[in-house]
Amino acid sequence: MRRLALFALTLLAAGPAAAYDGLVEKQVFTLDRLVLANGAGLRDVRVGFETYGQLNAAKDNVIVICHHITGNSHAAGRYAAGDPAPGYWDAIIGAGRPIDTDRFFVIATDTLVNPNPKSPQVITTGPATINPATGKPWGMDFPIVSSRDIVAVQKALLDTLGIARVHAVAGASAGAAQAAEWASAYPDIVGRFVSVVGPGVANRAYIVGMLDLWGMPIRLDAKWNKGNYYGSDEPVDGMVQTLKLVTFDGVAFDWADQRFGLAWADKEKNPGQAYRNQFAIEAGLTAAGAARARTFDANSWLYTTRAYQLAQFEAGRIKAPGLFVAVTSDRIFPPFLSKQAVATLRAQGNEAQYVEIESGGGHLDGITGVAAAGRAIADFLR
Amino acid sequence: MRRLALFALTLLAAGPAAAYDGLVEKQVFTLDRLVLANGAGLRDVRVGFETYGQLNAAKDNVIVICHHITGNSHAAGRYAAGDPAPGYWDAIIGAGRPIDTDRFFVIATDTLVNPNPKSPQVITTGPATINPATGKPWGMDFPIVSSRDIVAVQKALLDTLGIARVHAVAGASAGAAQAAEWASAYPDIVGRFVSVVGPGVANRAYIVGMLDLWGMPIRLDAKWNKGNYYGSDEPVDGMVQTLKLVTFDGVAFDWADQRFGLAWADKEKNPGQAYRNQFAIEAGLTAAGAARARTFDANSWLYTTRAYQLAQFEAGRIKAPGLFVAVTSDRIFPPFLSKQAVATLRAQGNEAQYVEIESGGGHLDGITGVAAAGRAIADFLR
Repeated sequence: MRRLALFALTLLAAGPAAAYDGLVEKQVFTLDRLVLANGAGLRDVRVGFETYGQLNAAKDNVIVICHHITGNSHAAGRYAAGDPAPGYWDAIIGAGRPIDTDRFFVIATDTLVNPNPKSPQVITTGPATINPATGKPWGMDFPIVSSRDIVAVQKALLDTLGIARVHAVAGASAGAAQAAEWASAYPDIVGRFVSVVGPGVANRAYIVGMLDLWGMPIRLDAKWNKGNYYGSDEPVDGMVQTLKLVTFDGVAFDWADQRFGLAWADKEKNPGQAYRNQFAIEAGLTAAGAARARTFDANSWLYTTRAYQLAQFEAGRIKAPGLFVAVTSDRIFPPFLSKQAVATLRAQGNEAQYVEIESGGGHLDGITGVAAAGRAIADFLR
Repeated sequence: MRRLALFALTLLAAGPAAAYDGLVEKQVFTLDRLVLANGAGLRDVRVGFETYGQLNAAKDNVIVICHHITGNSHAAGRYAAGDPAPGYWDAIIGAGRPIDTDRFFVIATDTLVNPNPKSPQVITTGPATINPATGKPWGMDFPIVSSRDIVAVQKALLDTLGIARVHAVAGASAGAAQAAEWASAYPDIVGRFVSVVGPGVANRAYIVGMLDLWGMPIRLDAKWNKGNYYGSDEPVDGMVQTLKLVTFDGVAFDWADQRFGLAWADKEKNPGQAYRNQFAIEAGLTAAGAARARTFDANSWLYTTRAYQLAQFEAGRIKAPGLFVAVTSDRIFPPFLSKQAVATLRAQGNEAQYVEIESGGGHLDGITGVAAAGRAIADFLR
């Protein structure tokens, strides 16, 4: 009995059309030439991608997953059975899960100018990539990319796979922005889209300002040197503080109470006695930023923030039904943005739904707490 | 008839007990010795203050106004008839206004370690003050101050004036934190307190984290030099970016749409073409930060943020009724904090009220839009 089961498993895992068993591998998509939204041309674009589930013969069971600003194409599964954690949305992507790999062919792509190029989970093309004309990293000479370009690369990958239509596009945060960008850039291709803790379907000055401030610590770091740091000291402090700020904006009051409370970083060192003595949340968020910063590239981060500042969201072009999932305590994209998106789409005759996750965990719950909206997402994808 | 009116006005304005006519002057309170909450002693404490209205014979018509983190004791009125703008809460402080100077003696004090010591409106003692032991600015050798110490200085001023009881304490934002600190530090003295866009009556890890990040740009600026910058280049960039960040956190989506929209800083320079090309909100908030930074001292800012991180808010000690005014779009102290404060106080048998200003202007509306709560404040002060 046991041997039989093992044999069946081996069979399933062997072929190219094997059922998704939770093990994934990174693949690479190469695009010889891309013309960007601003008119600039880019050669030899490479981005990583992962797939979960099987593409059916009609090639009409495709769900595109777009990742958040600090994320990558590892949306679900494990590279090896012993991996400590699966991809970020594993709770809702898999066999029998809301994004059901028994039914759908799910595809997740690393963004162009992904800010995390040193991560083994990321394959991207951006400022840290070698400029063939100079043999050195592009740095700030890399052409400016917009979120429209980010989804255009994903579209090119689908074209290569012969996929003419997608059942749905879904993502959290900046991934939700990409999903909305998909729905407006390719209105006749996108069947429906799911925005989790997203900005809605309108770019806003406040979002542009937030993204600008998320680059501020890097620009303040003297080692950034206007982007010319490759081969010398990198602006690590600026990158750490950027990720500390982003982490902070991404959580909320209850999360901070539960994680840190008002404890001191060192119980012998009272913050009431010396400025250098810290509260636990100060040291804890710095440590979190430092841990994340190791695989980030500062210029790529700046390019990524600019890409989303340039989001177009031509809501009037959107035809697909949209599902908007918001978290009550979200400080980055508060629920009213999702509600406004629903109102905008309904006013133009589209189908749109709003679902709220009641939580004090903040924006981050769009990643770690997404299972709370699993039922709504499953129903919407039917 | 006209001459008579003028004569009467002159009479009123002449004596020390003249009715408040909208003209104010800065006064100085000096305290020979202050023992801080952390046990450190401080000599020759000087803070500025202003008063509006007349102290009655019973000395029981006193309202203490506490200022926000970037503010000062200029809460109302003008120094000269030609001043371009009055004090920040002039809309609600004055003859016949919600905080009625025909009835109340209103007193507003500069905070200890006020971050704005170069402002002509500020008199304070802090890191930028000369340390008598060295003849140089204290810098980071200044003892750590808490918000409890800030209100203790105000209490000492009232003691000097022979005022044993206050009708009310009121303030916006950090001023609201001081008001709550007053109510818990001196429960038998405070008649009632008004918290406008405040943190409520509980310190929270998230607030501590936000105040930490508000010091981050200064600490990243190499010119800060761990606080040793007096007499050389000051960390202006860090101070500018700090005030840009604070300004941004203090506003909200609608404000940004109305002020900047998605315009470019320079209509010839497309942010989609080069990273150095900015959106209007990026350049506009930097300019706002730069304009404000001129009178700030970086170390004093860091001390001020630490003072509020150390807020005690011993809610259980509070006896006074509290009025909590929140702004719906407030990103710094969202309305739920005020609602929780009301619930906490009611649960312990106190009287507490909640009033909401419906606005897309953000936290800043606690200053510039406070008149919307004028009726509620007037009723509460009866």
